[in-house]
Amino acid sequence: MTDTVLAVLNQPSRDAAAHDPSADAYTWAKPLEEHLQVQDLGAIRGDGVFETITVVDGRPQALEPHLARFVRSAAMLDLPAPDLDAWRQAIEAVCARLDPVHEAFAKTVMTRGVEGSGRPTGWVYAAPSGDQSAARTEGIAVVTLDRGYRHDVERTSPWLLQGAKTLSYAVNMAALREAERRGADDALFVSTDGYVLEGTRANLVMSVDGRFVTPRTDIGILAGTTQADVFRFAEGEGIATSYELLTLADLEAADALWLLSSVRQAAPIRSVNGVTRSMDLAMTERINDFLLSREQ
Amino acid sequence: MTDTVLAVLNQPSRDAAAHDPSADAYTWAKPLEEHLQVQDLGAIRGDGVFETITVVDGRPQALEPHLARFVRSAAMLDLPAPDLDAWRQAIEAVCARLDPVHEAFAKTVMTRGVEGSGRPTGWVYAAPSGDQSAARTEGIAVVTLDRGYRHDVERTSPWLLQGAKTLSYAVNMAALREAERRGADDALFVSTDGYVLEGTRANLVMSVDGRFVTPRTDIGILAGTTQADVFRFAEGEGIATSYELLTLADLEAADALWLLSSVRQAAPIRSVNGVTRSMDLAMTERINDFLLSREQ
Repeated sequence: MTDTVLAVLNQPSRDAAAHDPSADAYTWAKPLEEHLQVQDLGAIRGDGVFETITVVDGRPQALEPHLARFVRSAAMLDLPAPDLDAWRQAIEAVCARLDPVHEAFAKTVMTRGVEGSGRPTGWVYAAPSGDQSAARTEGIAVVTLDRGYRHDVERTSPWLLQGAKTLSYAVNMAALREAERRGADDALFVSTDGYVLEGTRANLVMSVDGRFVTPRTDIGILAGTTQADVFRFAEGEGIATSYELLTLADLEAADALWLLSSVRQAAPIRSVNGVTRSMDLAMTERINDFLLSREQ
Repeated sequence: MTDTVLAVLNQPSRDAAAHDPSADAYTWAKPLEEHLQVQDLGAIRGDGVFETITVVDGRPQALEPHLARFVRSAAMLDLPAPDLDAWRQAIEAVCARLDPVHEAFAKTVMTRGVEGSGRPTGWVYAAPSGDQSAARTEGIAVVTLDRGYRHDVERTSPWLLQGAKTLSYAVNMAALREAERRGADDALFVSTDGYVLEGTRANLVMSVDGRFVTPRTDIGILAGTTQADVFRFAEGEGIATSYELLTLADLEAADALWLLSSVRQAAPIRSVNGVTRSMDLAMTERINDFLLSREQ
């Protein structure tokens, strides 16, 4: 945590007042000190949005897709629109200030702010990612867990915020603990009507008869920035890609499975609910080489 | 907010290390200053639990039921057990320090703490409640909204944390905004299989043929402390009470409806989805007189 670099935004949205109108876009802050009030709605209601961005050799990757999703999530929560100029400045400054490290991550957070203030709170911090090689080369064990929702809930009931990347992640963290209790590394959520959704903090991609397939993104899941870049890789390789409604039977029939996310990148799935799956480690290595060499 | 009194706990749980082992149970803090780190899992994952306790003339009400629920919520999230002696001390000190005011509230929050620290963060603040008389005497308009879950999800899928009072309240706040967009004051959640659940921050009680009825508490809703005391009131009055599975048809057939919560106490429902409902304002007044004169 001593390697963490933190910037606090002075005006996270132009639609709301600045914290310090005379200040620059961001202020450097010490990560081990206190910067949030206890009445911040981020801290008492999980009321805000975030992104986690891979940083390779100081360069934030898929920055614009992350920022676009940040804006979409904020809109789904009726938050003021993030001022992307200010966020870009803060993200780039934080990444530039990191100690030289090959893999790091930057986290952007915008909350609704202190109750009654009308001013969102925003910050960005970056830190080294730690060693991700075991997940990438040995694979991960996953269990499937009920997400409790039908696959169409994003359309029928938008106040459930499925598809927004919010700070209300207690369920994701509880599902991760449940997976660990079952001896696995992560969970894969399934809808009550039998469709495969997403991991607790990752998207699923499967290889099926030489194609790459991922769940449709209109079923209450996050549109993955890493998944999108893996599809870009696949298209460059002449591998067909598609977004589909996928069932547990499809999961069982697939030739190879990956969970994709920032920080960990492509992690091949070595077992589902205790059943060993074959992994395509040569393909995994090529995917991760592609992801870690992205220029943007 | 200048009337707010804030105490930060030095050791929210005896199962985890103290922040300051040499300090008292709590430390006085200024509510308008910063007390949380940006890597606190309460702020970045909504990963923690809370209670809101009514304070009348400086006296916290239903304190032990609130603390018991705080402990249950923490256990559902695999958090270390709150040290209730420390929490009681901090709550009582905060309430005693409030400027004299008839109605106030105290909020207790315990988060998983800063990522990797293993030390939960805890605080208590209290502030005047503001005028609740309009809701109590004129009633509130509610709309029913899909909660997206079946009524039995708490038993089938405990990692969804239904029934725990967590900091991941973004959905509750979004439902409240949706209710306001529809011209109402609050939302009443309904399960996908047609059972009436709870409000966004309140429990439902209905009067049916001279009985008081509330939804069963094993259907993924919070067991209400205010609702429990209303049942205690009813029993003292010779009114029968019961916990039942209630459908929208039951809601429609009821003689009177209330949303019950700390701070607002009993708010009669004057309309559901735009349809006017009859209110029992005399009974509402007796309920609120009872609630506001609780000795504990």
